[in-house]
Amino acid sequence: MTDMPTSNLRWLLASRPDGRPVPADFRLDQGEIPAISGTDVLVRHRIVSIDPYVRGRMSAAESYSRPIEIGSPIAGVALGDVVQSGAPEFAPGDTVMIGGGDLPGGGWQQFSVAEPGMVRRIDTQGLPETAFFGPLGMPGFTAWCGLTKIGRPKPGETVVVSAGTGAVGSMVGQFARLAGCRTVAIASGPEKCAFATETLGYDAAINRRAPDFPDRLAAACPDGVDIYFENVGGQVAEAVRPLLNDFARIPVCGLISQYNAWGAETPDESHAAFMRDVLVKRLTLTGFIISDFFADRPAFLDHARPLVAEGKIRWKDDIVEGLEGAPEAFLGLLEGRNFGKVLIRV
Amino acid sequence: MTDMPTSNLRWLLASRPDGRPVPADFRLDQGEIPAISGTDVLVRHRIVSIDPYVRGRMSAAESYSRPIEIGSPIAGVALGDVVQSGAPEFAPGDTVMIGGGDLPGGGWQQFSVAEPGMVRRIDTQGLPETAFFGPLGMPGFTAWCGLTKIGRPKPGETVVVSAGTGAVGSMVGQFARLAGCRTVAIASGPEKCAFATETLGYDAAINRRAPDFPDRLAAACPDGVDIYFENVGGQVAEAVRPLLNDFARIPVCGLISQYNAWGAETPDESHAAFMRDVLVKRLTLTGFIISDFFADRPAFLDHARPLVAEGKIRWKDDIVEGLEGAPEAFLGLLEGRNFGKVLIRV
Repeated sequence: MTDMPTSNLRWLLASRPDGRPVPADFRLDQGEIPAISGTDVLVRHRIVSIDPYVRGRMSAAESYSRPIEIGSPIAGVALGDVVQSGAPEFAPGDTVMIGGGDLPGGGWQQFSVAEPGMVRRIDTQGLPETAFFGPLGMPGFTAWCGLTKIGRPKPGETVVVSAGTGAVGSMVGQFARLAGCRTVAIASGPEKCAFATETLGYDAAINRRAPDFPDRLAAACPDGVDIYFENVGGQVAEAVRPLLNDFARIPVCGLISQYNAWGAETPDESHAAFMRDVLVKRLTLTGFIISDFFADRPAFLDHARPLVAEGKIRWKDDIVEGLEGAPEAFLGLLEGRNFGKVLIRV
Repeated sequence: MTDMPTSNLRWLLASRPDGRPVPADFRLDQGEIPAISGTDVLVRHRIVSIDPYVRGRMSAAESYSRPIEIGSPIAGVALGDVVQSGAPEFAPGDTVMIGGGDLPGGGWQQFSVAEPGMVRRIDTQGLPETAFFGPLGMPGFTAWCGLTKIGRPKPGETVVVSAGTGAVGSMVGQFARLAGCRTVAIASGPEKCAFATETLGYDAAINRRAPDFPDRLAAACPDGVDIYFENVGGQVAEAVRPLLNDFARIPVCGLISQYNAWGAETPDESHAAFMRDVLVKRLTLTGFIISDFFADRPAFLDHARPLVAEGKIRWKDDIVEGLEGAPEAFLGLLEGRNFGKVLIRV
């Protein structure tokens, strides 16, 4: 608790992006440290998560979470220390997580406040704190829910994961491998592809930027595709579509290409062709949002925590030092320039 | 068995259509009455079903059932009388059904032959024989499987059925109403709409040809749409999409607009917009083909036969007299000119 700041450095939404966000959409501000009342808990952030869903919340369009207001802090789950607590269950110095999604608290700032029910105590038991953002955090939970509840993998099936080295995708690939599946990552560039096979244990990894990407993907899936975990959409999805087997399942977790119209273009006829495949191949496509699955969180942690503790699950953090770099890290994430779970050390 | 023909009048596939089928794609032929061998059963057709899936089988493109060969009879399930049997379980005069889908036997012809395992004895117990084509036949079974297994209706939900007065759609609407749902038909023209509400018991029916069709549909679904039973695709589906509620289910049973590019045009951006809705609204879309559900047929008949016998299920036949009219009836079906289940009285 040394060097306690006297103000709350924070990033606010300055304007709503028209297409691709730009640095001017964010404004650095020196706010007041929030005051607590009642049972509120004040948390000083040490690590803040930078997530692609924020792009959706920057727009005013109706979505599954409400838009961030102009002049409000940018959202993100944070890990930090309790500074002040009006609730008996938290004391100064406790390590906690706060915020994320459209929950109160957290965000790209030094401090936030929330009611005690919105603050989660973290007992690391020797695990690195960053594990609670990636494999044991929202990305891991999202991966597990989409893969097991919608994908329903069976041993021997082929699972293709777009953004396969991303925070969610890297966990999907590992859970699927541990479930006995053949796993294929789609990733951006040779470095990520090498990471996918060498560290994450994918059976194959295909660079989506390769000129013959669709052919390479087909060659990596000699038995077709039984589960396509969709994080990207657009041209990546078009390359997977002809490979889908009868009764394939497609958990739709994200469409990052569409958020910024990056590689999102598809042929005019693609929707009709897609629907024809849904019918003829008896595909099942299900969109999901992790907040619908909160009741399953204990089951997820029971499954994943031992795997992380035993080293059976690997992950990579992409840590940016200092809150000042948050917008640049976010813009890089949207373009796939990050390598691992993007976190800000505040 | 009077007036036994000495040849087998039949319609053969003359050519594969390029887009919309034309009469010249069919050829009327006087074939030989098939000879039986072994345990074969020879059936003289009295009623033959005309079905939209035949359009798919007229093309050489890979689909879920194999293409009809040029020079082969056009497929369709038939009801008729056993003429000759090499199998002890069938005797001349038995009423049976034969063929349909890509099963052997049946078709747009006077006679067909199949092994006894492919021939189903019909015990009408006083029900009209045409019930075994519509409510108790493939259309009813298809409706029941798609609605109950994929749609999973709950009382009070809103179910929209495209081609809502068609052979399948009319059954979907009635099963959904009996399950306690609000039901809305999309149909072609005021006559079918009147039939939908007055006879089939839909709560509302909307004419897809009305200039303000999307607005009327929205007005008929004040609580949104929980299940959209997809028979049509294209512009009809586009009108339903904005009305879908979170967690809506879409059984994809057919895409008749796409078979002939009738009203199939959708905006260039429709696939991206569709995928965004899948994600944001957590939609589930599942294509299905009735042949994947044959094990459920007894359960379906247990459910549906009493409803038909008690008059709780209504249906309409569109009967064409004479095999000669089969192609015209089929072409009319593809354009929505039929009114009821299209059957040929041979």
